[in-house]
Amino acid sequence: MKIAVMGYGTIGSGVVEVIRRNSLKLEKKAGEEIEVKYVLDLRDFPGDPMEECIVHDYKTIVNDDEVKVVVETMGGVEPAYTFVKEMLEAKKHVTTSNKALVAAKGAELLEIAKANNVNFQFEASVGGGIPIIRNINSCLTADILEEITGILNGTTNYMLTKMANEGADFDEVLKDAQEKGYAEKDPTADIEGYDPCRKIAILTSIVSGKTVDFEDIHCEGITGISADDFKYAKKLNRSIKLLASSRQIGSNYVAMVAPYMLDSNHPLYSVNDVFNAVFVRGNVLGDAMFYGSGAGSLPTASAVVADVVEMTKNKDKHLEIEWSGEKLQLLDYKNTESRFFVRTDKSLEDVRKVFGNVEIVDGVIPNEIGFITSHTKESEFEEKAEKLGIINRIRIN
Amino acid sequence: MKIAVMGYGTIGSGVVEVIRRNSLKLEKKAGEEIEVKYVLDLRDFPGDPMEECIVHDYKTIVNDDEVKVVVETMGGVEPAYTFVKEMLEAKKHVTTSNKALVAAKGAELLEIAKANNVNFQFEASVGGGIPIIRNINSCLTADILEEITGILNGTTNYMLTKMANEGADFDEVLKDAQEKGYAEKDPTADIEGYDPCRKIAILTSIVSGKTVDFEDIHCEGITGISADDFKYAKKLNRSIKLLASSRQIGSNYVAMVAPYMLDSNHPLYSVNDVFNAVFVRGNVLGDAMFYGSGAGSLPTASAVVADVVEMTKNKDKHLEIEWSGEKLQLLDYKNTESRFFVRTDKSLEDVRKVFGNVEIVDGVIPNEIGFITSHTKESEFEEKAEKLGIINRIRIN
Repeated sequence: MKIAVMGYGTIGSGVVEVIRRNSLKLEKKAGEEIEVKYVLDLRDFPGDPMEECIVHDYKTIVNDDEVKVVVETMGGVEPAYTFVKEMLEAKKHVTTSNKALVAAKGAELLEIAKANNVNFQFEASVGGGIPIIRNINSCLTADILEEITGILNGTTNYMLTKMANEGADFDEVLKDAQEKGYAEKDPTADIEGYDPCRKIAILTSIVSGKTVDFEDIHCEGITGISADDFKYAKKLNRSIKLLASSRQIGSNYVAMVAPYMLDSNHPLYSVNDVFNAVFVRGNVLGDAMFYGSGAGSLPTASAVVADVVEMTKNKDKHLEIEWSGEKLQLLDYKNTESRFFVRTDKSLEDVRKVFGNVEIVDGVIPNEIGFITSHTKESEFEEKAEKLGIINRIRIN
Repeated sequence: MKIAVMGYGTIGSGVVEVIRRNSLKLEKKAGEEIEVKYVLDLRDFPGDPMEECIVHDYKTIVNDDEVKVVVETMGGVEPAYTFVKEMLEAKKHVTTSNKALVAAKGAELLEIAKANNVNFQFEASVGGGIPIIRNINSCLTADILEEITGILNGTTNYMLTKMANEGADFDEVLKDAQEKGYAEKDPTADIEGYDPCRKIAILTSIVSGKTVDFEDIHCEGITGISADDFKYAKKLNRSIKLLASSRQIGSNYVAMVAPYMLDSNHPLYSVNDVFNAVFVRGNVLGDAMFYGSGAGSLPTASAVVADVVEMTKNKDKHLEIEWSGEKLQLLDYKNTESRFFVRTDKSLEDVRKVFGNVEIVDGVIPNEIGFITSHTKESEFEEKAEKLGIINRIRIN
């Protein structure tokens, strides 16, 4: 099997490395040897072992009938979308690690793949090395998945872990994460939650079989989380995690990205540093959790290459992934219920007047009190919070 | 698709229930409706919804060409082996939850399945609802798996969790587990580690592609673990877990079942109660972990029915599982290295004389000291422990 890799960055070079390092295992699993024939990149790589394979024009790959599987690790919607589309139309299987592409064009590219009797796979687009998409599609097939909740962004999880361990404040850990290369110069996509939002949109699309527009998902990042919030978390023996979550309610779905204070019994409670994990609740399986490296060159490449193996094994066959272009109308999160941890500088009397008989957490920060609400409709909570006047609130499981 | 269920006990009735409850999802995933035509059991079930489907003679199933998939949930090697073999020879796919059968006859039944162009699957035989076998075979295909370590027995994990939380002693929690129905009247297979031993034999067979005889695996249970050991664990901020583990060393494997004291950073550290989890280290993926219900009617049935779905989807195709009858010669665990936590009533001076400069853990139990060794060859440790005279030792990660 001759393959092409489009994009010779962190993940693309990882793919080349995994194929080199584990060639015998891959040959055994795929049924034939896997060889990288082309690497598409704008740059040259003089002295690189792949130097001779570098091409600059994607048409070279489109027009080479020997290449049956194409890996896309360029990132971004364009030109990835144009390239991938042409590859599929040329009857080449494609796997991608590109969440932006999959979130924006997943259903369409799956349809094109089906029409051409090839496959479009994207295991590495969510959760890095964690095989969550294959688990949803091919392993947990006996279950109706009632909830999927993930820690799907390593950068923010690293930052929250550091804030928890060191009592550091947001700006400080962001600077550290940038220095370590975990966070980009412009960290918006991570800290505002846009990255995990695209990922939960992909997972919800796969579970529901319809297209979830990530712009429909209510999304809160971690910029509002402070060292003081972690003082309360510590007192409550909870951890603060940025969760991307999707639940089935009747035949509808609700999805959200937001920080949560997790109880120590929750399987995601102790997922720390740059690790990712996905919690799943099946209607017969019950609670399950998948944990691993959510990013990084080799772990992500591991997921890409697993797709290459499956597509090589099934090179003459379209493997059905149910994800139509029909738009999934999400429930308005404001009509769903949550519990909230709240901080306020108002009096206990005022708190009780507005929120009733809540659980009080005091003695943590001078001149304020914390409290935990019962399950409250989001819209109702907002009204009450505005009425009372609050410092911050974090959802609680 | 008409199927038969052999054994209408806890898991068999769970399988019937899952197929009833999730019929629409199953039909979508399998490509056709799945219907239970026969339930094989020695008993009658008057008034049961499946009453009309009950048969007492397995030949009824063998001889019915309409039945293409058979579920075996009887347990034990015989008569399960005879029945399953005949089903496969009659060109019916078989899935089983029966670890004893798979550990004893896995390679042979896979060969018979292949010869008859059908499938023999056994997802539910290890880790209950956790899809660990499908993950190893179909998801983590790009990796060489260097280590698999599981908490694979819910009964002992429940007992150890209770000992940790309540300071209770072994006999007390065993009695409680028996009263709650988690432990059998004869609890030997659980508490001596024979159950997880069979399961790690199955996982090691799948990873290596050869047959691991579970009797070759060094196996220690939890009967030697006392409330005093947990006092040390608490002081060390560690948990004690019964681990079934298998590691690749060069082209060889070593496997072991034994209690370990786990550091709080280990992904298995906080797997509590009856939950199971499997930690995997891939040479490119790095560390990953799969967590879920390791037993119980519906979770185990979820895994069985996922096999039914895959076999229905591939009813005309043998899906390769690499597991030959060739015996895998395991490395002698005595030649491998571990670290040990040790308790002794000897003097610090004696400890230092025999074990050198170890880490001391004192002040936990009067008139004894605890210490932690550096990495030591198992055989060498045994000699030293005998020389010193010890109260107990637990391996440490």
